Amino acid sequence: MRAVDIIQKKRDGGTLSPEEIGFFVDGYTAGRVPDYQASALAMAIFFRGMSPQETVSLTRSMMGTGEVLDLSFLPGPKVDKHSTGGVGDKTSLVLAPLAAACGVFVPMISGRGLGHTGGTLDKLESIPGFRVGLSLDEFRTVLRRTGMGLIGQTPQIAPADRKLYSLRDVTGTVESRPLIAASIMSKKMAEGIDALVLDVKTGDGAFMKTFEDSRALAQAMVDIGRGMGKKIVALITGMDEPLGNAVGNALEVREAVETLRGQGPADFEELVLEASARLLALSDLGLGLETARGRARETLADGSALATYRRWISAQGGDPDEDALPRAPVVLNAPAVRDGYVTRLRATAIGLAALRLGAGRRGKDDAIDHAVGIQLTAKEGDRVDAGRTLATIHARDEASAASGVAEFLAAVELGDTAPARRAIVLDVIA
Amino acid sequence: MRAVDIIQKKRDGGTLSPEEIGFFVDGYTAGRVPDYQASALAMAIFFRGMSPQETVSLTRSMMGTGEVLDLSFLPGPKVDKHSTGGVGDKTSLVLAPLAAACGVFVPMISGRGLGHTGGTLDKLESIPGFRVGLSLDEFRTVLRRTGMGLIGQTPQIAPADRKLYSLRDVTGTVESRPLIAASIMSKKMAEGIDALVLDVKTGDGAFMKTFEDSRALAQAMVDIGRGMGKKIVALITGMDEPLGNAVGNALEVREAVETLRGQGPADFEELVLEASARLLALSDLGLGLETARGRARETLADGSALATYRRWISAQGGDPDEDALPRAPVVLNAPAVRDGYVTRLRATAIGLAALRLGAGRRGKDDAIDHAVGIQLTAKEGDRVDAGRTLATIHARDEASAASGVAEFLAAVELGDTAPARRAIVLDVIA
Repeated sequence: MRAVDIIQKKRDGGTLSPEEIGFFVDGYTAGRVPDYQASALAMAIFFRGMSPQETVSLTRSMMGTGEVLDLSFLPGPKVDKHSTGGVGDKTSLVLAPLAAACGVFVPMISGRGLGHTGGTLDKLESIPGFRVGLSLDEFRTVLRRTGMGLIGQTPQIAPADRKLYSLRDVTGTVESRPLIAASIMSKKMAEGIDALVLDVKTGDGAFMKTFEDSRALAQAMVDIGRGMGKKIVALITGMDEPLGNAVGNALEVREAVETLRGQGPADFEELVLEASARLLALSDLGLGLETARGRARETLADGSALATYRRWISAQGGDPDEDALPRAPVVLNAPAVRDGYVTRLRATAIGLAALRLGAGRRGKDDAIDHAVGIQLTAKEGDRVDAGRTLATIHARDEASAASGVAEFLAAVELGDTAPARRAIVLDVIA
Repeated sequence: MRAVDIIQKKRDGGTLSPEEIGFFVDGYTAGRVPDYQASALAMAIFFRGMSPQETVSLTRSMMGTGEVLDLSFLPGPKVDKHSTGGVGDKTSLVLAPLAAACGVFVPMISGRGLGHTGGTLDKLESIPGFRVGLSLDEFRTVLRRTGMGLIGQTPQIAPADRKLYSLRDVTGTVESRPLIAASIMSKKMAEGIDALVLDVKTGDGAFMKTFEDSRALAQAMVDIGRGMGKKIVALITGMDEPLGNAVGNALEVREAVETLRGQGPADFEELVLEASARLLALSDLGLGLETARGRARETLADGSALATYRRWISAQGGDPDEDALPRAPVVLNAPAVRDGYVTRLRATAIGLAALRLGAGRRGKDDAIDHAVGIQLTAKEGDRVDAGRTLATIHARDEASAASGVAEFLAAVELGDTAPARRAIVLDVIA
């Protein structure tokens, strides 16, 4: 087999066999196939696409270049949720303890913030003492003890994906649906899980801006999961305004804890409960979807999800007390400039405003300020009077607080008529 | 400017500016833009194509990475002919002396054999003493003295093209019309010429198999030449059977000399005369096409083309005497297996048979046997009786002669009805 023949076959619209895909992926990971052939193939895939079967082969090959966790020692279903990323998305922090409290095991491998979107690892690191860099042995111990665990991507998981992703980033081949789907799924499938719920965001603050693109990506990932013998469901969820009210690391952890207490924002709680119920229904617990919804709601209400959360945070070295979370020294109100309805809260612009406050990274190696961020006090559809606080800006100093207010207000639109209320879950691909 | 943005622009169907193309080509040549970005761009160009203006910019940029000959010291028009390559194509060896004898200067930079096609440099090296590796100073001296000169590609000419061509070869991006056209033209335009005749082959033995593809490539090259302010014409010429009768280096040189004596095969002489006439008509000599045709014919007939040839060969160190050319020790006849018409003489198969006799290279570093080859004694359309010799196989030993006969006969088709005679020049793009 020669790499150039595989490139030409794809270029000319052919369908690659599992052997051809395996040859290319293994060769690329080992350095036998050079970057310049991998980028040419990625560009050919951008134009020609991949069949569901090819995408499964690619996922399987990339997963196979690294370690696949064996969690068979855990006495129960192993499940996970993956989000394509958005602004204010602290879902994992609530869903995982909730699901674990219901009797499933949740081994999460998570990422860091990227551009205007936050990352679960960054959020957790605002908790004093919390360690995201557990060894796989420590991870297994935490999982067994608390029913869940959350660590960062390790070099042992799907190294082909890590290498290919860096290459795609500089060769204009990021925006290829099969490559995106295989990249996500190669890491998720390495977690040794039985079932997966995908949260595919759509809208202004999402990677996929249109409903059609989001749906197509979700379908591609569902096809892969099913092709690999997993139980899988995808939710298409709205990401035009931030999810919940908190944007920024410690602020989001605090909101997650409030939600675990039953005092979370409506849109966020709705998403957490639906995603958790879908996960429980997929798991081998014998629950129908309606029963699962009830179970999720009870587990939040009776405090057992919160108890699991506290056990888990402690098990990974963190202080579960909310008062331990850092607070920004300067808090400034951003007021409504007129009477009216909040018609738009542009998620990307708000995410970028939080990033510039220090909540995210401009460069790859920037440090994060965990305390800063934006706390919304109004959401799309709310009626407000001029001067009413739309959000509080949590900043390191006065100057950045003032720019934060200005940037936030530029992301807001106020109008005379109430916008239509939209459900948070827009579609389900089961 | 960033290379990745240029890749994405082309990927998404945009038109690259001369500055963007220059940035990419210069950066790639200097090593600032890595191979993996160049191959991704080449693949995007494969799918998206390039506008005539983009192709001119690419050609100009690639040419500009190296030396452009300044031949303004030569007192007359500077012209050249380029062929896209075929089997038995010794056109340059006759056309260049013929044109030079008519008063134009012909500074040819030529190539070696590739696959089943021969190369002018290899043919000339069958002449004892002939040096293709002149310095540019020596080249200028030969040009001034004899009106023509022929050397190999130097590292100083269009280094970007050399680097990009090697990359395209292993990344499935050879077959892109704008990239092919720019590659050829970046080298030709570096010759410092005023006018160019392109001989774009079409058919079985050509790089472009179909008339439409050949015509489109010719048009792309004509557009580039014109866009760079040159006088240019393209001939589309047949390459289903070999050109002339000789295939193999010394055999072809001998046939070229016979043609310069007015004793060449009809198809070859027709092509040489038409291409020469087109070249003379393009040159600033004040000749119309019909007058140029007459002049070319006279120059062949009166021996002045042959005299120029002999002066030129001597000036580059070669022995112009035909008897000095090497002869193969074994010559075996390939006979017709039945009565009938020669309906097909498949050029590619005959070129490959000659290659396996030793006339070409299997691997990049193989030595060439200049003496061996195939001498046709019948052409498509000829009526033959069973047993009549169709070709003589010139070989190094008995065994290879015998395989040569078998391979040659497998490339021949004999039928009951005469095929339609085709003209050698199928179309002209002026």
